[in-house]
Amino acid sequence: MASNIRSPLAAEHFPVLPAIDGVAFAVGETGIRYKNRPDVLLALVAPGTTVAGVLTSSKSRSAPVDWCAEKLKGGAARALIVNSGNANAFTGSAGVKTVTTVAKAVAAKAKCKPHEIFQASTGVIGEPLDPAPIVKALPQLFGALRKDAWADAARAIMTTDTFPKAASRQARLGGVTVTLNGIAKGSGMIAPDMATMLSFIFTDAAMPARLLQKLLARSSARTFNCITVDGDTSTSDTLLIFATGTAGPALKGLKSDADPRLKDFARALDELCKDLALQVVRDGEGAEKLIEIAITGAEDDKSARKIGLAIANSPLVKTAIAGEDANWGRIVMAIGKSGEKAIRDKLKIWIGGVQLARNGMRAPDYREEDIVPHMKGRSIAIKADVGVGRGRATVWTCDLTHRYIDINGSYRS
Amino acid sequence: MASNIRSPLAAEHFPVLPAIDGVAFAVGETGIRYKNRPDVLLALVAPGTTVAGVLTSSKSRSAPVDWCAEKLKGGAARALIVNSGNANAFTGSAGVKTVTTVAKAVAAKAKCKPHEIFQASTGVIGEPLDPAPIVKALPQLFGALRKDAWADAARAIMTTDTFPKAASRQARLGGVTVTLNGIAKGSGMIAPDMATMLSFIFTDAAMPARLLQKLLARSSARTFNCITVDGDTSTSDTLLIFATGTAGPALKGLKSDADPRLKDFARALDELCKDLALQVVRDGEGAEKLIEIAITGAEDDKSARKIGLAIANSPLVKTAIAGEDANWGRIVMAIGKSGEKAIRDKLKIWIGGVQLARNGMRAPDYREEDIVPHMKGRSIAIKADVGVGRGRATVWTCDLTHRYIDINGSYRS
Repeated sequence: MASNIRSPLAAEHFPVLPAIDGVAFAVGETGIRYKNRPDVLLALVAPGTTVAGVLTSSKSRSAPVDWCAEKLKGGAARALIVNSGNANAFTGSAGVKTVTTVAKAVAAKAKCKPHEIFQASTGVIGEPLDPAPIVKALPQLFGALRKDAWADAARAIMTTDTFPKAASRQARLGGVTVTLNGIAKGSGMIAPDMATMLSFIFTDAAMPARLLQKLLARSSARTFNCITVDGDTSTSDTLLIFATGTAGPALKGLKSDADPRLKDFARALDELCKDLALQVVRDGEGAEKLIEIAITGAEDDKSARKIGLAIANSPLVKTAIAGEDANWGRIVMAIGKSGEKAIRDKLKIWIGGVQLARNGMRAPDYREEDIVPHMKGRSIAIKADVGVGRGRATVWTCDLTHRYIDINGSYRS
Repeated sequence: MASNIRSPLAAEHFPVLPAIDGVAFAVGETGIRYKNRPDVLLALVAPGTTVAGVLTSSKSRSAPVDWCAEKLKGGAARALIVNSGNANAFTGSAGVKTVTTVAKAVAAKAKCKPHEIFQASTGVIGEPLDPAPIVKALPQLFGALRKDAWADAARAIMTTDTFPKAASRQARLGGVTVTLNGIAKGSGMIAPDMATMLSFIFTDAAMPARLLQKLLARSSARTFNCITVDGDTSTSDTLLIFATGTAGPALKGLKSDADPRLKDFARALDELCKDLALQVVRDGEGAEKLIEIAITGAEDDKSARKIGLAIANSPLVKTAIAGEDANWGRIVMAIGKSGEKAIRDKLKIWIGGVQLARNGMRAPDYREEDIVPHMKGRSIAIKADVGVGRGRATVWTCDLTHRYIDINGSYRS
């Protein structure tokens, strides 16, 4: 890897994650690609655990993503196995054989069915992934399971990440307090849909798989699917949530994800997903600045998101921000190229709360020096109102710097 | 400007462009933005000249683009006036006033109607463009018109370009030889539709405006609209063709652009547009390598073009090529993210004529060292067959290097 410099946008410390009953981790070194670092993660979850997931929209998705898509239909999980270094993507029938072999081996140790085993792989595309080193590591992994190994788990799934990513929230659900912990990885090839590369969330709430799926899809639409680093969508993006039900029995008569009793849980899940998604952006390859882009006045929310992403994916906008240049002309350009409805002569643009443009032209009272301090900061806030309707969306990205090119020009070498 | 290093992909010499009867140029220095270099171009064309054009698809297009869109309906031209340094985009009613003022002043000198005056502006967005320096330069420009000033004309329209762009072709039309000359500028914010920033073509052929429009649209769809540098679409992209008719009378009974008598002219126009479009890519900001991406086996030609552009706009593909890394996994990723139909298990990928992948996996006989010499070259040829149908398209782009960031991180400063 070209660079191991910790992102300047990383939080200072790894967060505190309380243990969750019915969830235990172990990590190991298989040497699949990386040497002398953990590259395989096993998570064992209690019997009765439900599972839901959101997977990459790529049409050339990896063998483990195909596996998860199929097994999510069952809604039941007993274990998760993840390796870093090799994505097992574009590996043909050999790739399918690998996931089947690994699932069977993990299921035998966990004493469950293979369809209760979930898998993810991240790393190089197109290289066959030999299942043998993973299978060989299983006895050691099953012997080393610990409830408090969150940091080890977050580290084992890293590739070009410069810091391990995790977050925790609590919520009230049916009179008890439930915990939601999540880990994530991914710093390049980040774009909707999905944007996360890999993220795994665990909760002790009891939740039917069907509702868990609805809640996760809704949260990820506003968070993981609103972040972008380079507009590139991975073949492997996987977001899974496991609900052990160990905090207490399931709520009676739960039918809809709109049930008011789910409100606080949904709020916590939203917050957790946003926290993890923004950590992914903060570790965007070469990122020096976190950019939030809030769009209002669009035809609808979908249109607002598309406009936001057109700005977020514009190399000209991203390089300008890297250069600390409030080049709002490039924001106008990006809005224009989005193809979405925008009334040029009503367009308003703000950076760092300062209005730069209104009514189709530069704001007469705007002075560039007013936003110089904001441009020099680590967090850049762009806001645009496109003057059409009431649609709104917020998306996040990072700037485009020399380090992005350093990292990606030599990833495989 | 951050960089004036001539692109390593530039042709060694400015091409030879024969004079065209009824076309004369003059350039001047107005100091709008640049000092001590020509920044305004006047082209005067003979009475009776027809005109056609293809304009940016941006929804926030500039005042001169709005002007041209309206005046193209008339199909008649007497002059073209272009300035560099300021795009007169997102300038509200002041921008409209500027184009009206300039058109009237040029028309008065050219003794024609304002609607026969065509205009283009390129440069910074969002700054008001004062018409006064342009109007003031007109007497000098009208006094300095020359038929052989092609190189001066090509230079006057440059912004971040590192070399002037021009090309020439001849064709047989109705028993006479006609000439087509073109100039172009644009090296960043290059993407369909349009991709050219600015390009102006002049021919001595006689051609009704309606047919000229059809021929130009067809050629540009296969050339200017198949190139991309950074996926960003300008507010100002303008491609215009002027036909003076000075080579001989119009063909009798011309009704359709499919008339076989137009075939050689259409061929020459295609070639000319491709030559100019590739020069724009060769001057892509920071370009070190020209990348040709040929897609076959797509559902249809449109789908093939979309897949090609997904590869061409992928920062991960572009940085890998900058690093001379044949990272075909990223090509698979880009095909997958295009959203177009592709059969993963039939996918075939070649670089430099060497097959790297087939049947959904790495080609067993592929050895990375076989393509090292190709990756070190200036021209990279990527080919992918997606195994669905008979659709095909070729698109062009350049690699993504540190110089792109140098140039765009400090364009305004």
